[in-house]
Amino acid sequence: MSFSNQQSTYEPLTESTATSLATKLGLFEQGAVLRSKEIGDGNLNLVFHIVDDKTNISIIIKQALPYAKVVGESWPLTLKRATIESNALLTYYNLVPDLVPKVFYTDEVLAITVMEDLSHLEISRSGLIKGQNYPLLSEHIGRYLAHTLFYTSDFALNPQEKKKLAHRFSNPELCKITEDLVFTDPFFDIDTNNFESELQADVEKLWNDSKLKLEVAKLKQKFLTQGDALLHGDLHTGSIFASDQETKVIDPEFAFYGPFGFDIGQFLANLVLNALSRETDKQEPLFTHIDKTWAVFVDTFSHLWEKDNVEAYAKIDGYLDSLLKQILEDTIGFAGCEIIRRTIGLAHVADLDQIEDYNAKILSKQQALQLGKELILSRSTISSPTEIRNYFQTSYSY
Amino acid sequence: MSFSNQQSTYEPLTESTATSLATKLGLFEQGAVLRSKEIGDGNLNLVFHIVDDKTNISIIIKQALPYAKVVGESWPLTLKRATIESNALLTYYNLVPDLVPKVFYTDEVLAITVMEDLSHLEISRSGLIKGQNYPLLSEHIGRYLAHTLFYTSDFALNPQEKKKLAHRFSNPELCKITEDLVFTDPFFDIDTNNFESELQADVEKLWNDSKLKLEVAKLKQKFLTQGDALLHGDLHTGSIFASDQETKVIDPEFAFYGPFGFDIGQFLANLVLNALSRETDKQEPLFTHIDKTWAVFVDTFSHLWEKDNVEAYAKIDGYLDSLLKQILEDTIGFAGCEIIRRTIGLAHVADLDQIEDYNAKILSKQQALQLGKELILSRSTISSPTEIRNYFQTSYSY
Repeated sequence: MSFSNQQSTYEPLTESTATSLATKLGLFEQGAVLRSKEIGDGNLNLVFHIVDDKTNISIIIKQALPYAKVVGESWPLTLKRATIESNALLTYYNLVPDLVPKVFYTDEVLAITVMEDLSHLEISRSGLIKGQNYPLLSEHIGRYLAHTLFYTSDFALNPQEKKKLAHRFSNPELCKITEDLVFTDPFFDIDTNNFESELQADVEKLWNDSKLKLEVAKLKQKFLTQGDALLHGDLHTGSIFASDQETKVIDPEFAFYGPFGFDIGQFLANLVLNALSRETDKQEPLFTHIDKTWAVFVDTFSHLWEKDNVEAYAKIDGYLDSLLKQILEDTIGFAGCEIIRRTIGLAHVADLDQIEDYNAKILSKQQALQLGKELILSRSTISSPTEIRNYFQTSYSY
Repeated sequence: MSFSNQQSTYEPLTESTATSLATKLGLFEQGAVLRSKEIGDGNLNLVFHIVDDKTNISIIIKQALPYAKVVGESWPLTLKRATIESNALLTYYNLVPDLVPKVFYTDEVLAITVMEDLSHLEISRSGLIKGQNYPLLSEHIGRYLAHTLFYTSDFALNPQEKKKLAHRFSNPELCKITEDLVFTDPFFDIDTNNFESELQADVEKLWNDSKLKLEVAKLKQKFLTQGDALLHGDLHTGSIFASDQETKVIDPEFAFYGPFGFDIGQFLANLVLNALSRETDKQEPLFTHIDKTWAVFVDTFSHLWEKDNVEAYAKIDGYLDSLLKQILEDTIGFAGCEIIRRTIGLAHVADLDQIEDYNAKILSKQQALQLGKELILSRSTISSPTEIRNYFQTSYSY
């Protein structure tokens, strides 16, 4: 397998060819003896961890597989997502270099991204489940959101550049997964939904709630049509590496131009889902993260707006406030959809599924459904994500 | 000049090479003697009218020029707009074959579209200025709008197909013209604006009206970000050929994926502008057209929604009503912007500019500015375009 020129056809790497690639790329000292291990979950991607034990230098080689395995089924999935992912990482690295992995090399044909090894960090969902609180998580993600959303929007780019970027990040196949799994299937009686029989009555209530479904339909339409900024597209706590000092956002293969509030809403929803899995007296750090994510986002976005806005109307009284109000409304609505789909849809979160006491698990999931619904229906009157904790307390008494 | 294979470099046609092309394409009888005349205004495109006097068969060959001339200035303009135009015509022809010209041939390199000759019809702006009323105009355009907007949206296409179509119609350069000339420049003190000195005070009032400018900013943001459907992008009465029996929409070189209300708003605005140029007792046919365009659009769109909607939420109570309400609000707002920019911006309409009595012209333009402003500010409370005639009467007394 030669890497002197890029390959013309796709083939999956092995631990051995992954090592050869690492050597060829000159990312290690000459003559270094490399150890290679495939550490992915094998569902969507191969992930090779390549280490030089002598110098302790290590890298990750991620390669997209041409299919996706979910609950035993396998369906073909575009390799183009590797290009989307590496392009998004490179774009974000220019904006928030401390909050995304550094990319060393990409190969479009092999669907490969070679990047910084982050294995000294932990996936934040896993840490949060174990009771870690990651004190800097919300400050970092608030800043990440403000920078990535502002600087890829028409407010920072001239609209022609922005349209060219949007064109490059056209991502119909991965968007479809979100359209179906987040916005559609959970709200209809569809086979791929997955929930405990104890939830049947609650779920049927959702399916028959046309007031709720009308609001979800509007949120879905926004997701389908509104190209505000280059979204990560899948910003849950499983796409974030963290420690007490560091935060790194990974896996932007769902990146595309979508509505400002989507990434923020998904992230907040996953904090909510973790809070729902905790004892009442352990929830406060999550509530604080929710408040802080929004507060840091608003502060930073407003600062960038003042500093780098290229839109002629930027200084018009009330424009920023009106935009932030709309972003908040959408954020809360998208968060509601994410909470519901992670509870009864195809792809669950471990936070809820791993609750040991079965009755407690069912109760938490019922609370999740109620909370998700309330957020969607009340999204235009909620003045800050801080209010989420109130809904939370109400929903606990339900 | 050989047409057996498409050319590899662009060069402008002459009357003679246009005739050769027509002959090669086999659109006329063998041995036919063809007459060719360039009938374009030479600003943006060459337009050749090719006729066989013996059979009375004729065609149009339209070729984009690589620059645009406006008020003496010349700037480079993408030839890609010819491809956008011919692709849009072909797309629309599949949807409303009686309302757009038939395309016989296209050549991307030469930026050529060969199409049906419509010279038996008149440009509807010219006819309306002369007092024609085109009784079927609004019925036809209402149907055109409903079909082209519905069938290119996520409600009729699956979202993946729609994204691919949107990708194909990415049109940053021509969008920029609209962003600047419709949504920005007229609301700021910019050199390209063009208005009589008698309007100076009115125009300065607009420039200093930050409540109005905030609303225009929101409409501009919708134009920049909301990809509902494949718009014509420049649907004024100068882009419509008409007679008492027929209506044909031409020139969709600004086509791109934008908000549902934009085409509707531009068309209504140009009816309003013509009404403003008429004596009070000659305005009724325009008001009737405004009412009917919206009524036919709503009826037809609703019918297509029932018949061919692929969106899972289509049958949810209230979804169609809520969508139509939003489209109306945007339509009215976009109409307001168009009325203002056609009065004081770079590109005027002959309807107002050709008013013979100078004082009457200034008065009509003042009314246009007032009406445009009222539409933008009241757009969320207007329940039907029928109300435009009321604003009109109010504005007449101002």
